[in-house]
Amino acid sequence: MTLADDLEKARAALTMIHREPFNAEAPPDALNGDITPTELHYVRSNFAVPAHDGALEIGGAVEHPRTLTIDGLRAMPSVERVVTLECAGNGRLAMRPLPAGEPWGDYAVSTARWTGALLHQVLEQANPSAEGVEVRFTGADHGSYLLHPVLTDVNSNDLTFVRSLTLAHATDPEAEILVAYEMNGEPLDPDHGAPFRLIVPRWYGVASVKWLTHVDVLTEPYAGEFETGHYMYQWADRPPERVTLMRVRARITDPARGATIPVGTYTVRGKAWSGAGPITNVDVSVTGEGDWHTAQVEPPKGPYQWQDWSFAWEATEPGRHSLRARATDAAGDVQPHVPPWNRLGYGNNAIEVSYVDVR
Amino acid sequence: MTLADDLEKARAALTMIHREPFNAEAPPDALNGDITPTELHYVRSNFAVPAHDGALEIGGAVEHPRTLTIDGLRAMPSVERVVTLECAGNGRLAMRPLPAGEPWGDYAVSTARWTGALLHQVLEQANPSAEGVEVRFTGADHGSYLLHPVLTDVNSNDLTFVRSLTLAHATDPEAEILVAYEMNGEPLDPDHGAPFRLIVPRWYGVASVKWLTHVDVLTEPYAGEFETGHYMYQWADRPPERVTLMRVRARITDPARGATIPVGTYTVRGKAWSGAGPITNVDVSVTGEGDWHTAQVEPPKGPYQWQDWSFAWEATEPGRHSLRARATDAAGDVQPHVPPWNRLGYGNNAIEVSYVDVR
Repeated sequence: MTLADDLEKARAALTMIHREPFNAEAPPDALNGDITPTELHYVRSNFAVPAHDGALEIGGAVEHPRTLTIDGLRAMPSVERVVTLECAGNGRLAMRPLPAGEPWGDYAVSTARWTGALLHQVLEQANPSAEGVEVRFTGADHGSYLLHPVLTDVNSNDLTFVRSLTLAHATDPEAEILVAYEMNGEPLDPDHGAPFRLIVPRWYGVASVKWLTHVDVLTEPYAGEFETGHYMYQWADRPPERVTLMRVRARITDPARGATIPVGTYTVRGKAWSGAGPITNVDVSVTGEGDWHTAQVEPPKGPYQWQDWSFAWEATEPGRHSLRARATDAAGDVQPHVPPWNRLGYGNNAIEVSYVDVR
Repeated sequence: MTLADDLEKARAALTMIHREPFNAEAPPDALNGDITPTELHYVRSNFAVPAHDGALEIGGAVEHPRTLTIDGLRAMPSVERVVTLECAGNGRLAMRPLPAGEPWGDYAVSTARWTGALLHQVLEQANPSAEGVEVRFTGADHGSYLLHPVLTDVNSNDLTFVRSLTLAHATDPEAEILVAYEMNGEPLDPDHGAPFRLIVPRWYGVASVKWLTHVDVLTEPYAGEFETGHYMYQWADRPPERVTLMRVRARITDPARGATIPVGTYTVRGKAWSGAGPITNVDVSVTGEGDWHTAQVEPPKGPYQWQDWSFAWEATEPGRHSLRARATDAAGDVQPHVPPWNRLGYGNNAIEVSYVDVR
């Protein structure tokens, strides 16, 4: 099998949004389980799958620069975490005016079990300088970035995917950032960042740099295109802000949108997640009248993964019914009806409106 | 066959929104043709199908009150007009926050051939008083109107469906308002207002009172529930306004939403209409980038009916593509990305966003 054959097989079950670079949503029923099987996990790439020489260079403002390989990472204490990742552009297709960018529906969110070394331990071994303020993460992926002609401030023929985190965040043991080399118990596949990638729990997926090649401690803040150009909330009426934590969001997984269900009691089910903390409340509406009912929210099975919720709906009236679910997280954030618009279409955590036909 | 049997048969091909009163959308492909077959024409009723005694009383401030029957109407000069009707609540399900009211998707719009007497001639025979200012139209339909508990300003156990027009409008020969007794060449069926109804071209369907029983010339403006309570744009930030003309709107009829189409040239097709005049322009976008292209708009086949438009799209890139169509009418009105929100959810003529998968 060639790489192309492998990729084609790995991608077959996904809903392709863009062929090259490959971007694809999970199929809707992939949201039913706790863990998304790897072949159903959404894929977001800014560039084509790159070659990677197997080396991870730890450098910059550190006392002990070093080169790690996968064997070196595996020799470190191994940590396994279940992490929900969502693309910051998930839901863009529902924003109005429609923003530029990949036309993601609502299925660029998935949850996998990631295994790797802890980033803070990797950094401790290198011993960052006292002058360090940020850590820069470089992926092997690069290329032309004139995908969106309207965004003409970016027109590079060879841009590389680079992101940063504050040194405090990167070295915080409680942040549990991973340099992950396994996904759902298998070595990473090419679309998910083989041989290793960052996994930054709680943050939108953009922070979890794939195909990682360099980790550099910086003494100045980093200001690359994917940090200060793209992946910024470019608001209509106030200064831009970086895309960071996943916003609180509930999804209805059952019934499916537009489904026909029988008259009677129907258990509406879904998922909910937030980067700011566990989900404390999900409210469900079954009409357009503002009839919010409290759903049962299951306790989190881990600190970084979506939670199940359910609501027993007495669907007694035949006809079309609108369904809505609205999550609240431990930080007190609640999903809005209409999140503020931003030019590149990030962070759409609007209350989902679905409908079903009761027969 | 009983009335119930007849109704069930007549309703079988529609997408039911509400069982009683019966409200139903056209199936999506009903928008493909010039004329919507009666069994595919959307149905909007505020109350259950009423009994009607066959009499139409022309009264109020007129010199010659009279009673018309269907034979009397048929004895008058007969006029046939093709008229696009759209429910003012069409598209409500896409408004955010979701307004109260029937959860209409986007298919409460249809076009039929209506035959009837001209209202202005009916009124001329009665000779309205010089003091007349409005004409009130009463339907036979009535009942409890506590459909939407949140709208507690209306809680009548026996409200009747009544609407009005200005006398100037009702008696304007150029308005071509019909008292219609045939739809697509057949007597009206019960869901469409048998034995006769008003057809008010250019206006949202609410003006076209079904099951008409009384036409009364008034010397004071009328202020009933369906004129000044419901069917008002209740804006968030300014005084309410009546729902009148259909707003300019284009729909994409081909490809269907979410369709998969082959790589190559694809002729995107649709309909467009406006109460304010013919459609002068339709622009199509095939990305989120603001790439608006001019579609070919067919001349109107009549003054009150939707127009066809088409655009040859070079669909060369596999993957998901967003499609948009934006109409402009002779009055210079253009569809907005987001129309201003109103509490009861009327007049949603937002630019449609659809997507297709090119393979």
